[in-house]
Amino acid sequence: MSKAEGRLYYEDLAKGQVYGSGSVHVTTAEIKRFASEYDPQPFHLDEEKAQDSLFKGLAASGWHTAALTMRLLVEGELKLANGAVGGGIDELRWMKPVRPGDTLRIETEIVGKRESQSRPAYGIVQARTTTFNQNNEPVQTHVSSIIVPKRSPAAALAK
Amino acid sequence: MSKAEGRLYYEDLAKGQVYGSGSVHVTTAEIKRFASEYDPQPFHLDEEKAQDSLFKGLAASGWHTAALTMRLLVEGELKLANGAVGGGIDELRWMKPVRPGDTLRIETEIVGKRESQSRPAYGIVQARTTTFNQNNEPVQTHVSSIIVPKRSPAAALAK
Repeated sequence: MSKAEGRLYYEDLAKGQVYGSGSVHVTTAEIKRFASEYDPQPFHLDEEKAQDSLFKGLAASGWHTAALTMRLLVEGELKLANGAVGGGIDELRWMKPVRPGDTLRIETEIVGKRESQSRPAYGIVQARTTTFNQNNEPVQTHVSSIIVPKRSPAAALAK
Repeated sequence: MSKAEGRLYYEDLAKGQVYGSGSVHVTTAEIKRFASEYDPQPFHLDEEKAQDSLFKGLAASGWHTAALTMRLLVEGELKLANGAVGGGIDELRWMKPVRPGDTLRIETEIVGKRESQSRPAYGIVQARTTTFNQNNEPVQTHVSSIIVPKRSPAAALAK
């Protein structure tokens, strides 16, 4: 069975594993629609005004990129047994603007794992997800702490 | 002039200042719509399945809460001279689920500032933004690094 199949438990995950995803295309209309709802600033809404901004052209809101990254994660190869439930995010960085016409994909690397103190049936897995554009340039990265169930919670509880 | 008026430059911001916001109401329809586009998991889409999840009921995607927080920031009291341009986010935490019917507001505290090494006309301001529900319970917090222009870039360049 490849990593991409089935539902993954805490025991299945190990430091160094890398999980991929499909891709998503970003359009001008979507950039403006997301921005008008959640980040209504000129450089996300208006091509002309965006030219005079730090972005030097229309760019997607960083939160739009983060939201698209979540969709790629949910639909990607890292299929967790209870879905992707995150307790927190660290080191979220936007390295490069996402532009109209870009196509994004992600790679998620397991960078750490530990038992949960408060929930013995679960573990906490740290994963670094990098979002790439069609030129394989990283546009975003972050480290998420994901709550992942154990395959044998009863055994864990008995420890 | 109150902190809420005018456009703020790097020189105007000081550690300990707190900026507020208006509020936003969260509906079941919006929770499901955001989730269907960006975080299509049962606990964000289906009341019944959400009961059996870690969330014990329908909950907004954390990225939805983050996006709404951005809107409250853009429309809130911290009116920056070039808008809110973030280079990164640290310590993003979701402390409590956001539920249908919740009303959210934010408080943003300036927690640090420093000169930009790469851009002498700008400074980097660290701000901790906490998102509260209608019971004044924190549902999310994060620290953002914001790129803020100086009032007198020429003077800064001449230093």
